[in-house]
Amino acid sequence: MKGLRALSACALLAGLGLVSAVAFAQDSLPSWNDGKAKQSIVEFVAKVTKEGSPNFVAPAERIAAFDNDGTLWAEQPMYFQLFFALDRVKALAPQHPEWKTKEPFASLLKGNVKGALKGGEPAIAQIIMATHAGMTTEEFETLVRDWTGSAKHPKTGRLYTEMVYQPMLELLAYLRLNGFKTYIASGGGIEFMRPWTEKVYGIPPEQVIGSSIKTEYEMRNGKPVLVRLPAINFIDDKVGKPIGINQHIGRRPILAVGNSDGDLQMLQWTAAGGGARFMGLVHHTDAVREWAYDRKSAIGRLDKALDEANAKSWTVVDMKTDWKRIFAFE
Amino acid sequence: MKGLRALSACALLAGLGLVSAVAFAQDSLPSWNDGKAKQSIVEFVAKVTKEGSPNFVAPAERIAAFDNDGTLWAEQPMYFQLFFALDRVKALAPQHPEWKTKEPFASLLKGNVKGALKGGEPAIAQIIMATHAGMTTEEFETLVRDWTGSAKHPKTGRLYTEMVYQPMLELLAYLRLNGFKTYIASGGGIEFMRPWTEKVYGIPPEQVIGSSIKTEYEMRNGKPVLVRLPAINFIDDKVGKPIGINQHIGRRPILAVGNSDGDLQMLQWTAAGGGARFMGLVHHTDAVREWAYDRKSAIGRLDKALDEANAKSWTVVDMKTDWKRIFAFE
Repeated sequence: MKGLRALSACALLAGLGLVSAVAFAQDSLPSWNDGKAKQSIVEFVAKVTKEGSPNFVAPAERIAAFDNDGTLWAEQPMYFQLFFALDRVKALAPQHPEWKTKEPFASLLKGNVKGALKGGEPAIAQIIMATHAGMTTEEFETLVRDWTGSAKHPKTGRLYTEMVYQPMLELLAYLRLNGFKTYIASGGGIEFMRPWTEKVYGIPPEQVIGSSIKTEYEMRNGKPVLVRLPAINFIDDKVGKPIGINQHIGRRPILAVGNSDGDLQMLQWTAAGGGARFMGLVHHTDAVREWAYDRKSAIGRLDKALDEANAKSWTVVDMKTDWKRIFAFE
Repeated sequence: MKGLRALSACALLAGLGLVSAVAFAQDSLPSWNDGKAKQSIVEFVAKVTKEGSPNFVAPAERIAAFDNDGTLWAEQPMYFQLFFALDRVKALAPQHPEWKTKEPFASLLKGNVKGALKGGEPAIAQIIMATHAGMTTEEFETLVRDWTGSAKHPKTGRLYTEMVYQPMLELLAYLRLNGFKTYIASGGGIEFMRPWTEKVYGIPPEQVIGSSIKTEYEMRNGKPVLVRLPAINFIDDKVGKPIGINQHIGRRPILAVGNSDGDLQMLQWTAAGGGARFMGLVHHTDAVREWAYDRKSAIGRLDKALDEANAKSWTVVDMKTDWKRIFAFE
């Protein structure tokens, strides 16, 4: 936290032209090993921030988009939002006696997660709608805050919000220090992320793009509320990412980082703009400190996007060799 | 423009605590006559920006939402976006020989706008879809830029983007000077506004919320594009305004200004938050310098929202008496 505050002060001074932002590059990414990945980041930032250079990009156009699951925080053994949903099923079970015999809830309540998820996407959709809809946006925010403040990851025993990648926190801060506006563009729920992204990543709610369900404006005792409905509004994944980015930002990112095939279209969309571009993939290669998975993983599959990254010389971050530290708690 | 630049420098100094922002209040709103409306604005801003005061609001939460049509720019004799659509119909007519006999296009092409709009909302929807869909987002942006750079208002002979209210430009700049983030929340098309709102209002594309049609991600000659489809995605009017604001910003505004019943729910939603709040309506009362209309107007009807404003002591800006100048070109 102290580090982040120091960076902010620097950003202010740099903004005033009192100090050179680029001078901070080495100190801003201490958890990155020297190597191609780090070098490509530093070179890109130097290039687009150098006034008078043909690659210079005005601060307003320095839009950076990051996937969340598997890019900024971990996503194994399953998406963290699914853990939240399962905990909600348990909490809501007393109000739903019918769940005892109704799948996927029956299996879940017996602790058989695999069995419950056998039903595939329709089963997951049922779980999400039963746990994410039917309350106001404010009530949902409270549920998310309570859960992220207490629930622990089954493997590490840490809060889920502690399972964020230290090198990525440094990258986000380094980009902001250099005048970038950092956004999340995630397949995860927009309202599931917003209650904690500012504190954890320094990314405010208005810079979070994600999947959403519909909401309805309703008067309750003379007070207006937005009620969350059990109906999909937008899926911010694959082709949905450039669509969501265009809808929310109205500008094309000049830098985007993801970790799976769900990010491919966001990276293609970013690459297709004019001028200097940075496309990056986080490759999960460290089975000891984190997880190792790619082409065959059910969660966060990285296959086509890895081929395209190799073919087009996008930056592929090898977690095992590029990152000195993965989590801040290490 | 010089004035705006001066304000920016002040904002920077004020942000650094080198000067008091409130001291600029009088100079920041020169086109506002002294009166209740101006006073209520200045008092609200002073209250929420005073550190240590019970009404203090942290800068990140200083969200201000403005309607566009009739609030920031004029909307008579009809919404400006409709003029754009009509001009597009004329431009596209050679490619659509069938329009010669097909309503609402046939009437339009004969110069009979009233006849064409007799078909009501379905006719308008047909015109919008025929003129706003079928091209990429970039192609549409070019069309809007070309049109706003050349088309003239039938009454004033001015560019439409010159028909913005000088007192509102001052208010937007004054709020930003005091740490507010200014947003548009308009029933108009989000992609119709974004190409010019930054230049005209100082509001960047990512702070524009509006109605939208669906887009589709498509590869054209190996290059990804977003194609605009003839299907409604979101209507940012009435109950849609708080929904759109929540979706885009994820924070509740502490200040909102509109001018019609389409803004009522945005104002109610703003009012329902905790702490100090500012709800405002622009009342079109000046038939000489602008237009005078409210409860019975087909465009920008102000009826229920005026009743609620009076009942709840929201600020009602009387254009005739509160504004020294309406348009900058006066």
